[in-house]
Amino acid sequence: MKSIGVFDSGVGGLSVLKTLIKNHPNESFIYLGDTARLPYGTKSKDTIISYVKRNLNYLLNNHDIKAVVVACNSASSVISEVTSSVPLIGVIEAGVRAALKTTKNKRLSLWATRTTVELGQYKKHLDKKEKIESLTSTPCPLLVSLVEEGLQDTEIAWSMFDHYLSPVFQNESDTLIMGCTHFPFLKDSLTKYLKEVNKSLNLIDASSEISIELEKILTQDSKKKKQPSSKQEIKVLLTDCASNFKHFTTKNLPKNLNFEFSMINI
Amino acid sequence: MKSIGVFDSGVGGLSVLKTLIKNHPNESFIYLGDTARLPYGTKSKDTIISYVKRNLNYLLNNHDIKAVVVACNSASSVISEVTSSVPLIGVIEAGVRAALKTTKNKRLSLWATRTTVELGQYKKHLDKKEKIESLTSTPCPLLVSLVEEGLQDTEIAWSMFDHYLSPVFQNESDTLIMGCTHFPFLKDSLTKYLKEVNKSLNLIDASSEISIELEKILTQDSKKKKQPSSKQEIKVLLTDCASNFKHFTTKNLPKNLNFEFSMINI
Repeated sequence: MKSIGVFDSGVGGLSVLKTLIKNHPNESFIYLGDTARLPYGTKSKDTIISYVKRNLNYLLNNHDIKAVVVACNSASSVISEVTSSVPLIGVIEAGVRAALKTTKNKRLSLWATRTTVELGQYKKHLDKKEKIESLTSTPCPLLVSLVEEGLQDTEIAWSMFDHYLSPVFQNESDTLIMGCTHFPFLKDSLTKYLKEVNKSLNLIDASSEISIELEKILTQDSKKKKQPSSKQEIKVLLTDCASNFKHFTTKNLPKNLNFEFSMINI
Repeated sequence: MKSIGVFDSGVGGLSVLKTLIKNHPNESFIYLGDTARLPYGTKSKDTIISYVKRNLNYLLNNHDIKAVVVACNSASSVISEVTSSVPLIGVIEAGVRAALKTTKNKRLSLWATRTTVELGQYKKHLDKKEKIESLTSTPCPLLVSLVEEGLQDTEIAWSMFDHYLSPVFQNESDTLIMGCTHFPFLKDSLTKYLKEVNKSLNLIDASSEISIELEKILTQDSKKKKQPSSKQEIKVLLTDCASNFKHFTTKNLPKNLNFEFSMINI
């Protein structure tokens, strides 16, 4: 049975994988975590393009893959420059669609890594879709480490929310795009914070939209040839044994999932 | 004229370079920032060994180098497994020496990256030198991003100091080894914080000890052959154009220094 490939530099993309596993219980997934090169969000465009090509080639040449989800915003920023023999789904277009469905006042904010902000793909995709009032983009690299360390319920998180929400409130945004796949893991904590400071803000996580897009591709695919439904398998391939990857998975993904980990050298 | 090679994954090692430039005004330096692979502190031992070998080979094969300073704690943790044709100076032994000169109650604390803590080289080097009462090691990855983002004078820094100093105070340490080359850039802010919470703590930055060790090597070297003193040159080689590297250098190193930046592909 063909699998769906998902890749990211590290644990962030697991927020996307979590939603996909839940919404597509008859599909199998191969998650590539490029932990030897993490994070992508501080690297240059050319370097990220070379990483994306390498991950994609590895998945397509070594596994039976029917679609690939690029579960990383920095990597999704460059997918227009990469060719693929299977459908390639990025998080940015999905995030933009979700944000436009949600916002009422068309004043958007974006939290992302420094590279995603600098590559400006959210702005470009928004401009292509419809006219908005404003977009305030804030690079939030500290939130990445916060999630990786599991410190989202501490005073440190609160002080970061104070800091990074300041431009969002100043822009009077009603919608915040969580433009890094680490950030959906902050959702509960951020919701608590917003309640405490008595503010309302729609938090956009692209993974539900990705799920819808994947469903469309799978439907087209199954029209072409009938596939037997089978037991869901989830393989995780890591390019380096990042000591906290398994720990993070156990802590943040449903307990009943059975992950099969292996190391690859690419 | 032969130069002194210095390398780190990113900007952290600039804290060491800053001291070396000041203390050795007649020496020229070549700083290699392996920004394409940063950070090292989340990578595995084998991966770090391969990066250290690559950096070292590049410096020795392409430049006229008389000594190499490994200005990164994670990389210094593995230098016993690497051979070199020129003297190789790591930050860990230097940090241990400085800490032992300073502590009175022999209760030490260490702040480092997760990999440096896990590799345990500080403990091994301390055990070799003398018996101490205790060593409390805390992985502080958030402090790395804090320094890189230049947020050391914000409320975020204060909340991180609260968090990461808690085990230090609990251990009743009189001395804290700043076991990541990013951390000396926190010294001023941390000193202010300690004053505010009315606590005293010796902050150990290995760079002065490295300077002393380098001086010994240079003296031996100059006994062997007389070198003409010449204008100090400082070259910075980066493996990826990390957008904030130059900005960080301008902000954190003396204004009168003339850095010559280039990109290398290794």
